[in-house]
Amino acid sequence: MDIAPSPLARPFPEMPPIDGAILRVARAHYKTWDRADLTYAELAPGTTVAGVFTTSACASSEVELGREQVKLGSARALIVNAGNSNAFTGFRGREAVEQIMAQVATALGCEPSEVLVSSTGVIGVPLPKDKARDGVAAVLEAQPCSWDEAASAIGTTDTFTKGAHAAAMLGDKRAELCGFIKGSGMIAPDMATMLGYIFTDAAVEAAFLQEMLAKANAQTFSCITVDGDTSTSDTVLAFATGKAGNPPIASWDDAGADAFYAALLAVCRELAQLVVRDGEGAQKFIEIAVTGADNNASAQRVGMSIANSPLVKTAIAGGDANWGRVVMAVGKAGEPADRDKLSIGFGGVWAARDGQPLADYDEAPVARHLEGQEIRIDVDLGIGDGRATVWTCDLTHGYISINADYRS
Amino acid sequence: MDIAPSPLARPFPEMPPIDGAILRVARAHYKTWDRADLTYAELAPGTTVAGVFTTSACASSEVELGREQVKLGSARALIVNAGNSNAFTGFRGREAVEQIMAQVATALGCEPSEVLVSSTGVIGVPLPKDKARDGVAAVLEAQPCSWDEAASAIGTTDTFTKGAHAAAMLGDKRAELCGFIKGSGMIAPDMATMLGYIFTDAAVEAAFLQEMLAKANAQTFSCITVDGDTSTSDTVLAFATGKAGNPPIASWDDAGADAFYAALLAVCRELAQLVVRDGEGAQKFIEIAVTGADNNASAQRVGMSIANSPLVKTAIAGGDANWGRVVMAVGKAGEPADRDKLSIGFGGVWAARDGQPLADYDEAPVARHLEGQEIRIDVDLGIGDGRATVWTCDLTHGYISINADYRS
Repeated sequence: MDIAPSPLARPFPEMPPIDGAILRVARAHYKTWDRADLTYAELAPGTTVAGVFTTSACASSEVELGREQVKLGSARALIVNAGNSNAFTGFRGREAVEQIMAQVATALGCEPSEVLVSSTGVIGVPLPKDKARDGVAAVLEAQPCSWDEAASAIGTTDTFTKGAHAAAMLGDKRAELCGFIKGSGMIAPDMATMLGYIFTDAAVEAAFLQEMLAKANAQTFSCITVDGDTSTSDTVLAFATGKAGNPPIASWDDAGADAFYAALLAVCRELAQLVVRDGEGAQKFIEIAVTGADNNASAQRVGMSIANSPLVKTAIAGGDANWGRVVMAVGKAGEPADRDKLSIGFGGVWAARDGQPLADYDEAPVARHLEGQEIRIDVDLGIGDGRATVWTCDLTHGYISINADYRS
Repeated sequence: MDIAPSPLARPFPEMPPIDGAILRVARAHYKTWDRADLTYAELAPGTTVAGVFTTSACASSEVELGREQVKLGSARALIVNAGNSNAFTGFRGREAVEQIMAQVATALGCEPSEVLVSSTGVIGVPLPKDKARDGVAAVLEAQPCSWDEAASAIGTTDTFTKGAHAAAMLGDKRAELCGFIKGSGMIAPDMATMLGYIFTDAAVEAAFLQEMLAKANAQTFSCITVDGDTSTSDTVLAFATGKAGNPPIASWDDAGADAFYAALLAVCRELAQLVVRDGEGAQKFIEIAVTGADNNASAQRVGMSIANSPLVKTAIAGGDANWGRVVMAVGKAGEPADRDKLSIGFGGVWAARDGQPLADYDEAPVARHLEGQEIRIDVDLGIGDGRATVWTCDLTHGYISINADYRS
């Protein structure tokens, strides 16, 4: 299946190298395709790691192991396999991951637990150990590659490569943050998974890196949806090599903590939004801002109820300012709401306020807004101070074509 | 928009009259259409009523009032407006409902609280009081009509009329149960709502009728989904006229209670399945049986997670036995599950057992099964005794066409 690049695609940004992180790619031939599909990042001794993972009860061995590895907080390498998610493969899948960890650890002279592994692709087929072994051997000998090449090698059905960059001043030291991500819908045809990786030369203690990543995740990756379907392998890892020379950041009180977090949040937000921009069949990018909720968590759940509603998403696809469907999605969210205090707007124009359609509602500017690619929906619940912003895409014939017309 | 009848449609069944219930329809002209859109059921004195309603936090005035009315347990009339849901219309919407209740109560010499009202159609436009007044006046004078005519008059974008019948022996008395329903997806273009009505000549005390309806609802209407979008107006009402002559049923210990419940459950199940068969764009009817869950409620939530997954639904649309997507949907349900104990089958053939694909899995009979219109998915979680069966339809280009290509 050949899919044209998303109309919402962004060019891959200029990103500087990260001192202490070297990228390499190789061909493991996990599928019969003519491309690199095994990505390796070698990380300097002392690199800390944090991670957030799928909440799926059927997570892959990579995720199960990764959860334990980030608790230890130390990383020397990352391996990403593309074309086979190794999920739902039982003990044979786990053996393949442990083989990769041991092989890389031997080459680097580190602990196997310092080798993080991710896999993305078909579910239910154990990762072939021979291909993995040969691929890892090849990638360990490969020349360093660019961010763009690495971002491309982790992709499966992505229609464009996705990266984000930010910098933070940590006292008199400048730290760089570079990230890349794959994902096109939570799942692509018979493929799975959003995988994201962020590298920084800042020195950040592992526990605090985890705290910041979890906080940023709650406002970014946890606030996007393409189809509401959560993968068995979703993973975002952050690696801090410490080469920037700043005194290690270990708490919010430390110099540079706020600046670093702001940069981390910016990278996470951009990576998250890029996944939505590559959503299967997406023609429009939708930002949904919820205010006036009981609390922030409630606002996020209301936002995701709207963002996951097929009727809201098809309405936007059709350029229809159908606020009745937004009312429906607010109502079904299971969160505190008062029909008679609810306000809904599109593109900065209120269509309904305090539970009733506006008598002087002018649909013309709203109709023009909905003809565009960047859609904004405002929902004010009018009952509290909780707020959240979430992002999704529209639901189009393209989604059906990708997922129904295609046979695995 | 002209939509062809669903390929999954069922013919309207033969249904006997219910002693104590008289149906009439009239034209209120809620929309510019050439059809009856106001339905009236006159119920004999002594009729008891029970109801289940949407859990939406943005429910319509009809639902708010209905919740109170069924607590009183006595009904003399039902009015159903089609073409305008009167939802999200504030106090003006409520005034319209109260006007209808008062007008019918005056004509019948009963309490306004004994007049149940439902409305379905566009959200956010107050039900026009003048059209309602003239329509109610007309329907009170109309000739009695058939079940089929009443079922047709409550429809909006339904592609076929839907009814179900069962009978129960209550000691030496025979009771009839007749029901009809509307719904085509939880929401049709700019329309909303599943509305269902069940009439019986059995004598059943209101509180026990409510208990039985709630129990049946949990296994039927709460176990269907087309698109996961819950309407602001969903309503199912059951009326018992008492004309069958049986001693009133007031508890599970009373003669005929089990027989009546079995008949009620059968009618509810058939009505619920008919709504799925008219799901927007549906080409296949899907039954999902979940076993081995922690408990029944958990099994139901796992089943609904599968039934609501756009990736599972598009896979079925494409005839693809993609059990990896079923694993994904089980994993995201937020319920107890163990990846290594999970089994998944299609059409009675296991594709994966105990967390791994079967080595000798023969896809041929599964592929043949998936070419049909009636699809069965079995999921065994392998951790407990909980079980549930849910029903949905596939997700096709037809759904997108109905909901995105059409402008309200």
